[in-house]
Amino acid sequence: MNRNLPIGIFDSGVGGLTVYRALHERLPNERFVYLGDTARVPYGTKSLATVERYAVENSRFLEARGIKLLVVACNTASALAVPAIRKAVQVPVIGVIEPGSRAAVEVAGTANIGVIATEATVNSGAYAKEIAALGASGEVLERACPLFVPLAEEGWADSDVARMVARDYLNDFRTTSVAALVLGCTHYPILRNVISETIGRETTLIDSGAATAADVELVLEKLCLRHDEPLGLYQERRLCDDLDHFYVTDAAERFAKVAERFLGSAPSILEAVEIWGHDELRTH
Amino acid sequence: MNRNLPIGIFDSGVGGLTVYRALHERLPNERFVYLGDTARVPYGTKSLATVERYAVENSRFLEARGIKLLVVACNTASALAVPAIRKAVQVPVIGVIEPGSRAAVEVAGTANIGVIATEATVNSGAYAKEIAALGASGEVLERACPLFVPLAEEGWADSDVARMVARDYLNDFRTTSVAALVLGCTHYPILRNVISETIGRETTLIDSGAATAADVELVLEKLCLRHDEPLGLYQERRLCDDLDHFYVTDAAERFAKVAERFLGSAPSILEAVEIWGHDELRTH
Repeated sequence: MNRNLPIGIFDSGVGGLTVYRALHERLPNERFVYLGDTARVPYGTKSLATVERYAVENSRFLEARGIKLLVVACNTASALAVPAIRKAVQVPVIGVIEPGSRAAVEVAGTANIGVIATEATVNSGAYAKEIAALGASGEVLERACPLFVPLAEEGWADSDVARMVARDYLNDFRTTSVAALVLGCTHYPILRNVISETIGRETTLIDSGAATAADVELVLEKLCLRHDEPLGLYQERRLCDDLDHFYVTDAAERFAKVAERFLGSAPSILEAVEIWGHDELRTH
Repeated sequence: MNRNLPIGIFDSGVGGLTVYRALHERLPNERFVYLGDTARVPYGTKSLATVERYAVENSRFLEARGIKLLVVACNTASALAVPAIRKAVQVPVIGVIEPGSRAAVEVAGTANIGVIATEATVNSGAYAKEIAALGASGEVLERACPLFVPLAEEGWADSDVARMVARDYLNDFRTTSVAALVLGCTHYPILRNVISETIGRETTLIDSGAATAADVELVLEKLCLRHDEPLGLYQERRLCDDLDHFYVTDAAERFAKVAERFLGSAPSILEAVEIWGHDELRTH
């Protein structure tokens, strides 16, 4: 494996940019290739078989593009499809469930942990299983918060509507208090302020992005795949600069607009691609 | 063409059930085949090329299943893809834009007309063009209301959140009043009460479903394709009974649950199918 290759990141759409930002901050000497599957977003209301199929297609696309490691930024794909992805590609694969769970257990210790995520992620029980596997003894309370995604995408993250929706969704966590709350969907960090305000400052919010970036660093080091020299003439990296390449499967303009809302800048290099219809996955 | 064949209806997901209901009420002696493209929903934020591709695949699937007429229940697909669909299939094709526009012009006369729809439908300008083609002289005001879709799907149609969102979206129509407001997305009739309350009772809400059903009846009569005898042993048809066949491309359980919320009953016959990857549409 060549350490000069970029790190691949895929997400069901634009939400994974929050993971891209965390990776970019932690690993400023790495280049990134991001794929947002905007033609088939969202994944959170879809079935296991469909999420697996989409995730494998995305992973194969990035592997063919040339990457040294693959980050599954989408929580739903991480919860449902990591085993299928590992079978399909040769590069190391890192999902967000394990790093997020570990960060939550570190904070909560034996206290209760809350998880908010998509319907599919909650139904998979992936976070609860991972947290239990890490030996946490507190209760794990999970809650699907589907309206948070469109609220973030439509730019209503800091609205009275978001506050009202958050009050409804997070009600369970006010009766049974949790020491840590996992933001188990890449869109949720965008609503961080409203979520924190609603659940109360004594609950620590866990954004899997930062924990995942730490794991990626560790794996790169172990495999001697880290790129440590500054990149080309760049003294300081900027988010979305021309060392990173962004692909979307549809609606590039909309992606650029939402990226600007999420990151403060739109991708320098943004390309629309079609990735479906791999023969081995297709059915008639 | 055989008049005993069912009428095909497709939608990006579950929203088209409001059109199915209108057709069912108007044409109780017809059978229906419904396809909800739940693996790729929503269409309203996707591009022209992608919506066309999905719409053509759905139409070919229903034609292969055997139908005498195709109703495009999805406003986004109707606005963007009807020409492509007509090239791809042999059966008569009826979208919802023209019937909905006509119903609005009949109500509004020379007064202003409002249209609320998805981002893609608003950007296409399909309603404004159709209303102008019908000779209406008033202004046409269009507004995308993306959050209405998840609010309807998640069962928040009659909530304070929906009322707050509606107040924001419909603000333009309170400064420039409209005589008729087209509910230009199949999900919006689910929020009819909140929308009507917010915009005021003097504005008539236009649900394309009923207008489309009237058009379908007319076309069937002209082509001598109407089925007038009662169906089998059925004295009275029920919504979702076993004379109608429902297909989804993913997550059948979730569809059944939302169908029950929309129609009061879940489909008797509901089948999950895979329809993508037609060779002639596929790219590598």
